[in-house]
Amino acid sequence: MTDPAASLESLPLRDDLRGMSPYGAPQLEVEVALNTNENTHPVPPEVVEAITQRVHDCASSLNRYPDRDFTALRGALARYLGHGLDEDNVWAANGSNEILQQILQAFGGPGRSVLSFVPTYSMYPLLALGTGTEFIAGERAADFTLTAESAAEQVRSHAPDIVFLCSPNNPTGTALGLNVVEAVYEAGRDSDTVVVVDEAYAEFARFGTPSALTLLDGRPRLIVSRTMSKAFALAGARLGYFAAAREVADAMRLVRLPYHLSSVTQATALAALEHHQTLLATVEDVKMQRDRIVDELKRMGLTPAESDSNFVFFDCGGDAHAMWQALLDRGVLVRDVGIPGHLRVTAGTEAETTAFLDAVESFLAR
Amino acid sequence: MTDPAASLESLPLRDDLRGMSPYGAPQLEVEVALNTNENTHPVPPEVVEAITQRVHDCASSLNRYPDRDFTALRGALARYLGHGLDEDNVWAANGSNEILQQILQAFGGPGRSVLSFVPTYSMYPLLALGTGTEFIAGERAADFTLTAESAAEQVRSHAPDIVFLCSPNNPTGTALGLNVVEAVYEAGRDSDTVVVVDEAYAEFARFGTPSALTLLDGRPRLIVSRTMSKAFALAGARLGYFAAAREVADAMRLVRLPYHLSSVTQATALAALEHHQTLLATVEDVKMQRDRIVDELKRMGLTPAESDSNFVFFDCGGDAHAMWQALLDRGVLVRDVGIPGHLRVTAGTEAETTAFLDAVESFLAR
Repeated sequence: MTDPAASLESLPLRDDLRGMSPYGAPQLEVEVALNTNENTHPVPPEVVEAITQRVHDCASSLNRYPDRDFTALRGALARYLGHGLDEDNVWAANGSNEILQQILQAFGGPGRSVLSFVPTYSMYPLLALGTGTEFIAGERAADFTLTAESAAEQVRSHAPDIVFLCSPNNPTGTALGLNVVEAVYEAGRDSDTVVVVDEAYAEFARFGTPSALTLLDGRPRLIVSRTMSKAFALAGARLGYFAAAREVADAMRLVRLPYHLSSVTQATALAALEHHQTLLATVEDVKMQRDRIVDELKRMGLTPAESDSNFVFFDCGGDAHAMWQALLDRGVLVRDVGIPGHLRVTAGTEAETTAFLDAVESFLAR
Repeated sequence: MTDPAASLESLPLRDDLRGMSPYGAPQLEVEVALNTNENTHPVPPEVVEAITQRVHDCASSLNRYPDRDFTALRGALARYLGHGLDEDNVWAANGSNEILQQILQAFGGPGRSVLSFVPTYSMYPLLALGTGTEFIAGERAADFTLTAESAAEQVRSHAPDIVFLCSPNNPTGTALGLNVVEAVYEAGRDSDTVVVVDEAYAEFARFGTPSALTLLDGRPRLIVSRTMSKAFALAGARLGYFAAAREVADAMRLVRLPYHLSSVTQATALAALEHHQTLLATVEDVKMQRDRIVDELKRMGLTPAESDSNFVFFDCGGDAHAMWQALLDRGVLVRDVGIPGHLRVTAGTEAETTAFLDAVESFLAR
């Protein structure tokens, strides 16, 4: 293949895309892939059979368009979430990236802005760019934490149209206290700011960490987004969703592409939700390996952040790229998230976690 | 449910969305649904089994993200299209609406414009709105035809960034001559205009109607989009795609959401492509019913347009809404596309077509 960047220059691309590279972690063939925060446990046979059966049942009708409002799926997602939510409070799309894109299309866009607190999920500025929304990079403390006072002050100062709060935060892994969410919501009252809490990793939070779902009642500008990619071990099925006031879900109909969720996607997600207890059984295993990574890295003298997610962000005490390459040379792929001196590793199975820890120890002992 | 329009007003929606209603044909439960140009033939058992098997084979790995570049699917689509295309020339997305949205994101957007010739596919202005692209409504002759001279003159006059040519055109059904595509492409040379030929219905064209795929060689600004929703009888699977110069396909990586095509979608489309001869066997049946509709409506004294698609657009010789309602009362749902005195009907199975024709004849005889 010729150099894509060179040939792209010949096209009448939008000016703000010129010279850009596509987003995405390298999809390298390695033995131990711990770079994209997948759930590394395969989908259990019982769920494979349920998905297969549901897809089989809908396949002869694939000549027809899907249920545009995916009513059955919204009901199943609401029942899974609980908190008194029903299908009218829930919306879904092809991955939580599409969820966030639709929120930006409805409440952001040209002349509007979205504030988030960096470092955070690296897709936020790209989604803002793609929808013509100004991205405002808010600040965190030097240890990457965010207090309610600081967050609220930044919201009052910028008066953004939208705030994205990633909790647990990617790439640092720590959940926000609900007091931060409440303070941001209150600070956005005058500017009518829509507050999105991106809880992609919520199911992995440490015991006693409450979800922003508990704050939805009486807060019509609050949206809590989730995904089936992580705890549900269903990254390949692309199903993101949110819970909010029913009028927020209704508003998505104005910006979603008609029939955006295929019948096959709806069938797959419904089968997984029917078996959510089986799928979520891996969460405890993952949390155990996550805690083991934190403990072991500390033992080796490194500085990992506290994690409420299925990954650990750590200060590697030196040249992050050298460690990244040394791990890769041993077949272990982790993520260099572009923060000097830091790496991010997904908590995998026990064997994968051991391979990672052995590779780190070996690198440090070199 | 409370009135959605009323509650939407309380939200900080973008100004250009205020007061809008969501796009979409009514999804009514009727016996004979001929309103959305689906292929009314169910997916054959052989293909149902192939889809089921492919989904079963990928289901245990759904914990992993999909192949972001869907290489196998692009290869299969290129082989289906022929014309010397290979996987680097092909791109795919969740339905051709997402294909067109990505093209607008790459080459349109704020400060840019897209020209199309109305009446045409009613999603074009909505996709333009959703991406902040100015929509320019070009003109057709009173009989809805479009000559090369008129099209080229309008392109030179407006110098748009993008032109959408729907061929066969929805809702009128007739294919454009390739001379129109060539003239539009030449007229857009100075303005570096990207020309998109939307061939969603191409497989239904009358014998001897060439595809714009034959024009791709040497035309780097030309894109030909297709879908598996119509001839492939796979509307529920949401798979649109295009063929173009490889750098155009590469450019889509800058605007697509990462992992936008699920593993399940890729598996379903691959299974269908392996069995494309079986799936496309219904096309001849549909064309026969389509021609029967044209002939019979003429016999009844109505004026249908010549059709290269799986639907017929016709002048109903009076009150279109009255005819629409009378047909619905007999269990036949057709589409009122908002053009006074006209309706659009999908060519269904022989029995569905008979039900439609009987209902029209009965209405005219009332």
